[in-house]
Amino acid sequence: MTAAPLDEDGLIARFFAPIAGPGGLGLRDDAAVIAPPAGHDLVVTVDALVAGGHFFADDPPAGIALKALAVNLSDLAAKGADPLGFTLALALPAGWTADWMGCFARGLGEAAAAHGCPLLGGDTVRAGGPLTLSITAFGAVPAGRMVPRTGAGPGDRLYVSGTIGDAALGLKLRLAGRGAPEGQAHLLDRYLHPRPRLALRAALRRHASGAMDVSDGFVGDLRKMMRASGVAATVDLGAVPLSEAARRFIRDDASGFEVAVTGGDDYEILASVPDAEARAFEAASAAAGVPVAEVGRVGEGEGVAFRGRDGGAVDFARGAFSHF
Amino acid sequence: MTAAPLDEDGLIARFFAPIAGPGGLGLRDDAAVIAPPAGHDLVVTVDALVAGGHFFADDPPAGIALKALAVNLSDLAAKGADPLGFTLALALPAGWTADWMGCFARGLGEAAAAHGCPLLGGDTVRAGGPLTLSITAFGAVPAGRMVPRTGAGPGDRLYVSGTIGDAALGLKLRLAGRGAPEGQAHLLDRYLHPRPRLALRAALRRHASGAMDVSDGFVGDLRKMMRASGVAATVDLGAVPLSEAARRFIRDDASGFEVAVTGGDDYEILASVPDAEARAFEAASAAAGVPVAEVGRVGEGEGVAFRGRDGGAVDFARGAFSHF
Repeated sequence: MTAAPLDEDGLIARFFAPIAGPGGLGLRDDAAVIAPPAGHDLVVTVDALVAGGHFFADDPPAGIALKALAVNLSDLAAKGADPLGFTLALALPAGWTADWMGCFARGLGEAAAAHGCPLLGGDTVRAGGPLTLSITAFGAVPAGRMVPRTGAGPGDRLYVSGTIGDAALGLKLRLAGRGAPEGQAHLLDRYLHPRPRLALRAALRRHASGAMDVSDGFVGDLRKMMRASGVAATVDLGAVPLSEAARRFIRDDASGFEVAVTGGDDYEILASVPDAEARAFEAASAAAGVPVAEVGRVGEGEGVAFRGRDGGAVDFARGAFSHF
Repeated sequence: MTAAPLDEDGLIARFFAPIAGPGGLGLRDDAAVIAPPAGHDLVVTVDALVAGGHFFADDPPAGIALKALAVNLSDLAAKGADPLGFTLALALPAGWTADWMGCFARGLGEAAAAHGCPLLGGDTVRAGGPLTLSITAFGAVPAGRMVPRTGAGPGDRLYVSGTIGDAALGLKLRLAGRGAPEGQAHLLDRYLHPRPRLALRAALRRHASGAMDVSDGFVGDLRKMMRASGVAATVDLGAVPLSEAARRFIRDDASGFEVAVTGGDDYEILASVPDAEARAFEAASAAAGVPVAEVGRVGEGEGVAFRGRDGGAVDFARGAFSHF
């Protein structure tokens, strides 16, 4: 495999201009233009991913592209923001190929179209280290209405979307190199293909006091949000939603439960919802097609008390998966 | 030197939260908020820099930070945009130290304050390759008024700000490892410390039909802008403004002239200005304290004809310095 003989302009014209949105000006200017809706704030989030840390260098390139965009859209979803577009900075390893780039760009274009979040611009450098992608994504919320991480208040209920731990268990399977046992392919898929919960954004905007996306592990992210909000919480681990595949994994290997609740890459939403809004939030989530489960309560003070499935107190040594 | 024993949250709290702007929410949320001025478009630009490509790994960290921000502000300046803020993605090499990071963050904070462009958010990953920085910068222009690269029209005059070639000659001195001869320290400084021409943005917005920043070499960037605008140009190389230090370099080494006009890292502004606006543009630039020089004319057709200092036609084999 030899590096494709393309300069940066050729690379942009061939692979990225075809997938750019109108604000990207054909990727032929120095900058892109976003016209934010009147009366809206712009929400900006940035997430960088590196081969060997956030994905495997030999993952399918379209999957890498999807993941890089999805982890950023997950942040926008948690903030209640409508996606407007994104920029991409790509640091290429030695020996990248036009084939790889074609698949990557196609995957990125499909993910962007599927989520209504067009590519607006970017930059590409040959870094010679591991493939590193950095996406900055933009969204809009009505002015002053971004759902903050700091908004949880005493008495609020804590909800989590979807199921927790699938991706972390999928990564465990992947690292063990055994492939997926019967009924557990779902876990590998959740690791490779995060699905940002954009469908939940309106319900969060209307009913949640606070939210963040669960990307570095449920236990650690929950502690982080309670700390940021200056409150305490009691969490019922028995109420943490698990997929059928995760349950099956844990039935065979009890250590899987801790992996599930502390491991990363869920890209689900953790939200605090005032008591008076709880039913409306549940109804709006159901109407949006996103399952949510109540997992605990916010209280005064600090720290998170986890109650195990047997009712006893549980502590976690590790708390959060850190990509860093 | 050992890597500093900090996790990502610790690193953010210690080094970056102190230099963040209010929209960065103390870097404790998943996202930042920008409230763009009513009736304005948001201009977005992204530039990535990699050690060994855009700077030397052993450059002073504050200088690296300044350069990473400045090259993005240079794009905003060329688009006539008022800076609003920026995000940073940092891929760290093995063996980074808290000392290095402290100097880097301090330099970044000073550069951000000097240009009124606060840090809003970011992400840091340990990549283990060369240090790679990607900055996405945001600016505002009155709706529909971004100065495009594509706007040059037949009859327009071509202007360039400041002086051309200093940084490329500085890089040449640096690579030769000889230090700066008498009177040429200016060249090394221009390579290390780009000064974005933000002071010119109002003049560009009012009077220019098109503009781009000169970052990859005057000759190549001029060709790029004419191609993007679908026009031709005639350029008088004798009119290209050179600093006293560059003239001195070229007096000793005639090959320096081609390096000066084709080499990168000028971070000056190339603008096309309609004839009727030319005097007003010159006056506005002078009032802003930015020297501008008329270097040529836009015409119908395609291609750029360069007239040498002796009046004859000149062609350039290389045309543009490419970081890529």
